[in-house]
Amino acid sequence: MSETASKSFPSDIEISRSTKLKHISEIARNIGIDADDIIPYGKYKAKVPLHYINEQKIQQSNLILITAITPNKAGVGKTVTSVALSLGLNYIGKKAAVALREPSLGPCFGMKGGAAGGGYSQVLPMEDINLHFTGDFHAITCANNMIAALLDNYQYQNRNTDKALERIVWRRVLDVNDRSLRNMVSGLGGSANGIPTEMGFDITPASEIMALFCLATSEEDLQARIERIVLGYRSNKTPFTVKDLDIAGSITVLLKDAILPNLVQTTENTTAFVHGGPFANIAHGCNSVLATKMALSCNDYVVTESGFGSDLGAEKFLDIKCRLSGLRPKATVIVATTAALKLHGGVPAADITKQNMEALMAGAPNLRRHIQNMKGFGQNVVVSFNRFKHDSDEEIAYLESVCEEEGVVFAINNGFVSGGEGAASLAQKVVDLIENNPSKDINFTYELEDSIRVKIEKIATKIYRAGAVTFSGSAATKLKQFEANGWGNLPVCVAKTQYSFSDDEKKICAPEGFTINVRDLVINAGAGFIVAVAGEIMRMPGLPKDPQAMHIKLINGEIEGLS
Amino acid sequence: MSETASKSFPSDIEISRSTKLKHISEIARNIGIDADDIIPYGKYKAKVPLHYINEQKIQQSNLILITAITPNKAGVGKTVTSVALSLGLNYIGKKAAVALREPSLGPCFGMKGGAAGGGYSQVLPMEDINLHFTGDFHAITCANNMIAALLDNYQYQNRNTDKALERIVWRRVLDVNDRSLRNMVSGLGGSANGIPTEMGFDITPASEIMALFCLATSEEDLQARIERIVLGYRSNKTPFTVKDLDIAGSITVLLKDAILPNLVQTTENTTAFVHGGPFANIAHGCNSVLATKMALSCNDYVVTESGFGSDLGAEKFLDIKCRLSGLRPKATVIVATTAALKLHGGVPAADITKQNMEALMAGAPNLRRHIQNMKGFGQNVVVSFNRFKHDSDEEIAYLESVCEEEGVVFAINNGFVSGGEGAASLAQKVVDLIENNPSKDINFTYELEDSIRVKIEKIATKIYRAGAVTFSGSAATKLKQFEANGWGNLPVCVAKTQYSFSDDEKKICAPEGFTINVRDLVINAGAGFIVAVAGEIMRMPGLPKDPQAMHIKLINGEIEGLS
Repeated sequence: MSETASKSFPSDIEISRSTKLKHISEIARNIGIDADDIIPYGKYKAKVPLHYINEQKIQQSNLILITAITPNKAGVGKTVTSVALSLGLNYIGKKAAVALREPSLGPCFGMKGGAAGGGYSQVLPMEDINLHFTGDFHAITCANNMIAALLDNYQYQNRNTDKALERIVWRRVLDVNDRSLRNMVSGLGGSANGIPTEMGFDITPASEIMALFCLATSEEDLQARIERIVLGYRSNKTPFTVKDLDIAGSITVLLKDAILPNLVQTTENTTAFVHGGPFANIAHGCNSVLATKMALSCNDYVVTESGFGSDLGAEKFLDIKCRLSGLRPKATVIVATTAALKLHGGVPAADITKQNMEALMAGAPNLRRHIQNMKGFGQNVVVSFNRFKHDSDEEIAYLESVCEEEGVVFAINNGFVSGGEGAASLAQKVVDLIENNPSKDINFTYELEDSIRVKIEKIATKIYRAGAVTFSGSAATKLKQFEANGWGNLPVCVAKTQYSFSDDEKKICAPEGFTINVRDLVINAGAGFIVAVAGEIMRMPGLPKDPQAMHIKLINGEIEGLS
Repeated sequence: MSETASKSFPSDIEISRSTKLKHISEIARNIGIDADDIIPYGKYKAKVPLHYINEQKIQQSNLILITAITPNKAGVGKTVTSVALSLGLNYIGKKAAVALREPSLGPCFGMKGGAAGGGYSQVLPMEDINLHFTGDFHAITCANNMIAALLDNYQYQNRNTDKALERIVWRRVLDVNDRSLRNMVSGLGGSANGIPTEMGFDITPASEIMALFCLATSEEDLQARIERIVLGYRSNKTPFTVKDLDIAGSITVLLKDAILPNLVQTTENTTAFVHGGPFANIAHGCNSVLATKMALSCNDYVVTESGFGSDLGAEKFLDIKCRLSGLRPKATVIVATTAALKLHGGVPAADITKQNMEALMAGAPNLRRHIQNMKGFGQNVVVSFNRFKHDSDEEIAYLESVCEEEGVVFAINNGFVSGGEGAASLAQKVVDLIENNPSKDINFTYELEDSIRVKIEKIATKIYRAGAVTFSGSAATKLKQFEANGWGNLPVCVAKTQYSFSDDEKKICAPEGFTINVRDLVINAGAGFIVAVAGEIMRMPGLPKDPQAMHIKLINGEIEGLS
């Protein structure tokens, strides 16, 4: 988002530091939460106990989903829009909160910065949120690896017996970018040191613990989901779960604090819940159900964000998270920029700030398809543009005409530069839509009763606009095995590139008629979905030649180099 | 310590739950710390900012070191004594705190329970302290593994150049008991996934980050220590450090909250600092310098504990921690039990609760040597017995006579059963000793200017009473290399079995004239010591057949199975 910034526009961290934060107990009191009930982590972060979740109030409150066009190098500012809209809603007199994912620490030290918004639309304290925060990711890492240690110990103690598993599918995790941990062999060094085993580490947001943590609806449901995690298979091919290992209680104990939603504040001291952070390809890519419910219980409007473009994040938000939890957004905001659409229209990255009506028109079908897909879900849509200085009036007018043709609301968001005031117009349009024409129930892409194959085909054809779906031999075998194992009624979570509607990141804009190839199926019985893997998915990023870690420093007690 | 308990005596967790905790801001206020200055983690834990450290007050306050006879299966109750003595001191009207190590989460889910004292002498909330606590261990794990990822990335980005290191010595850590992670190969799966490398994980308390974290005297010193960590060696054999990797700033940022001492309370609402937890063999085995200094800054008496027996923990406390920090204990308490001494006297474990004067006399030389060693340091000594029901008056009278012969104070501690009241007599004896005959400056075992070989020989002969020290070929080579690298003036930290004065755990009681074999030397330039490895040291424990994890559960919001 730095493109909007003039030379004198302050950096994210400067804005963050110049913001006078309110004590978190005051933020809590403002939304009806007794200061004595919160669990503070310093002055500006707190966990909120689950008894504040109020199902009746949730039904009355208004949930707004933020999604986006297909992402590319230009970036669209989805988190900025989410925060800004919540600021704008407060600005026009509504009691509104934002509910976001927690950023992963690993990438902060690698290529990209943090993920707490930007400009005058941030969640704060950004340094804490981007680092250890309230320890949720550490607790999830710990729980994931405790299961792995207990599982390997089970194998070790039962070696050479028929209790030993034939195959282990559980991997370890660390919240770090570390390519060398992707593929490893453990248990070397002789029989006192375990059994030689092929294994590896994913980054923490890729843990199934993260996914089920974000979908759990209560502490009891959390434990039940942990019990259902499939760790491997016995020699008779039956699945072996955490329940079989008899450790779900202790793993739940490790997560008992983490499961409580985190309360923080924005650059304008309004309410923000930042809790959970699963991947949006191999998982469902949105903050925890409990945080969304908590935010709705204490506010009249809640803005929440889903991952990547609407084909990945919003589809999973609606078909998985909403179906499971009963949550129903009253409106959906699709975030776009002229620059990102021009990239979809085929211009080189170097030229995206130049006016180019031809490229914009060539890229517009990407926006149109995201609009149509969201309307297909029964969502009423606002398209929000983060306006940049290089946007010409002619370009903006064209995009407004596209929205008009598609029958959706057009809005400009200046929240990055001007906070709530800059997002007031967007907020008013969203409120008008919700008051006059709220989205009704969700028109799901598939029914749970559909076969796994049919579910995948429906997502691929209705959302991605594929012409056909093929399955590798092993995926085809698993289709049958998973149904035989009783997992046939679970929703499907497709893992594919975020850069295209297809499974080929080079097919930008609005491809159609392509073939999606499902090369593998993965059971996430704890999270409660089947991952259909279409393409190579990175579960453990690497570090670049010049990692951000070389630029992060503590200077007079202030952190430099985080953004 | 459960041997003292009658059938109706409540369990540790029952006592913990029945204790009415005070809000941590009240605990802080009681020792002159403004409630606004602490960083709370919920209601009963807080971090205290470093500006409360007062060097002048530290000099005036009284530090008491708790150590023990050579440990064995009987256990002596060192942590219970540490907590109890602080309670007893408060009971007799002194302003006293206890400063302890943080327990490691891994072993809580494995064989043993937690490490927060027991009976009516506990630090609370024990469940939190034994689990994630304030996240210090997670931050240390994260910092350790971030270095590893950045180091492997350096190797990867510089592969096939002369910048690539010839040898890496840095290992990763996780706070879990997991034998299969001891010896591994990473970087498999082709050239996009790193370089195949032999590596492995230790448990977090074995990280050099843990050791240097506990020895750091300020935030700046923390960063300087991180810079000095040796990660590997270049092809020209020169050491390659974190400073060379240019990431000390970002690693310090990861530890900026963790480095602040943790304030909690005891079963009698008195002050406890629980901070840092390094191993007592490959590291120095005591809580952080900053926590000890903070405790001394806010109290008149501070009780602190060192690891294992006095040959390991107290020797390192005095020769490493005190030498570095300027801390000087005014008295040392050696903890012992009849049962543990009878084991040293040769009786089988099944018979230690039966009166056996012969065995007790045969085991007494172990106690005598620990007394003599501590006196050799210039410490004035109280020997404290945790009295058990099976202790006969004759046994106790004999031990009192041993203390008299050795010229040290004899005391009985009933703090496990009766808290501060039960430790009042011990406390009074300690106060009397400090008031009438405080320990003077420390008579260190060796001088920093001694050669590394001489330092090791002095520890082995003066403290362990070895007849000779031998060095393996590689250790002998490293003696020269380390001195050539400029590390010759560092103190030495011997890693050997805790079960014997010798390097052979079977040589119980008071062996002498044996030969200590140093098979390896390890540089911990960040921690600031050289580890002399004498024997096989477990840096990553395994799990037993019936891990404690199978018994830990969350029942109605309360944790069962932690102890």
